[in-house]
Amino acid sequence: MPVVIGVAGYSDSGKTLLIEHLVPRLMARGLRVAVIKDCEHAVDVDRPGKDTDRLFAAGADVLAAGPNETFIRLHAADLSLAECLRRLPPEYDLVVTEGFRDAAIPKIRLDSEPDEHLLVRLTDAQEGTDAAEQAVWEYVTRATSDASL
Amino acid sequence: MPVVIGVAGYSDSGKTLLIEHLVPRLMARGLRVAVIKDCEHAVDVDRPGKDTDRLFAAGADVLAAGPNETFIRLHAADLSLAECLRRLPPEYDLVVTEGFRDAAIPKIRLDSEPDEHLLVRLTDAQEGTDAAEQAVWEYVTRATSDASL
Repeated sequence: MPVVIGVAGYSDSGKTLLIEHLVPRLMARGLRVAVIKDCEHAVDVDRPGKDTDRLFAAGADVLAAGPNETFIRLHAADLSLAECLRRLPPEYDLVVTEGFRDAAIPKIRLDSEPDEHLLVRLTDAQEGTDAAEQAVWEYVTRATSDASL
Repeated sequence: MPVVIGVAGYSDSGKTLLIEHLVPRLMARGLRVAVIKDCEHAVDVDRPGKDTDRLFAAGADVLAAGPNETFIRLHAADLSLAECLRRLPPEYDLVVTEGFRDAAIPKIRLDSEPDEHLLVRLTDAQEGTDAAEQAVWEYVTRATSDASL
């Protein structure tokens, strides 16, 4: 099971920007990283009329194996974090989540809300990247060594 | 493990059309169906500059949980059928594949190539839907009852 953490904050507080900066740093440390984003608005992928879109419209979930990347479209909607984790391939060390406000997971906070699972609190997404990287790395290292006892 | 079958045929022989017609019929029979398509050309999803696209460009695999559907983008490319199956969520009864020419799985054929794993051979995708549905349903029923022995 991967280690799962969250990034929380008000709208436009820089959650995506922070994750965008964190991911390459954590990957450079050797972690295999996935991001799960809880989207408020309809997600909009694929192109109408393409083969993969026709197969999805026919009712099937679709995996498209391309020469550049792979994508999977599922009809399952409005998934909880646990339901998302169950559908993610099994190969990650760390999953960073954005938008699952009520999930009881350690969180990086870009706001001033109280949090009993606080990992680190930042006042600025850009300037806080170093502190966030350090906090996540320590947490992952600790969680992984605990799990291997 | 789901039952896995393939649809094979020359270019433009109607493989996607056949699957498009088969899927709702098989789902109406109670099967949970996924389609895996081996795409020759680059798959093209998401919209440049969107949050999910930025997170993917940062290097992470991304799962986007939307109110309408869910999608997963993986950097893994050019996957074999076995590698695709390992990344698919575990909840399907039947996986229909298109494009994995060399996979040793039962196949519906829309061409005249020899095939030691032949499920059924059709001369026309549109007119062959009934025969294909029947052959797939019998195969799934048999494979499932064998597995539960």
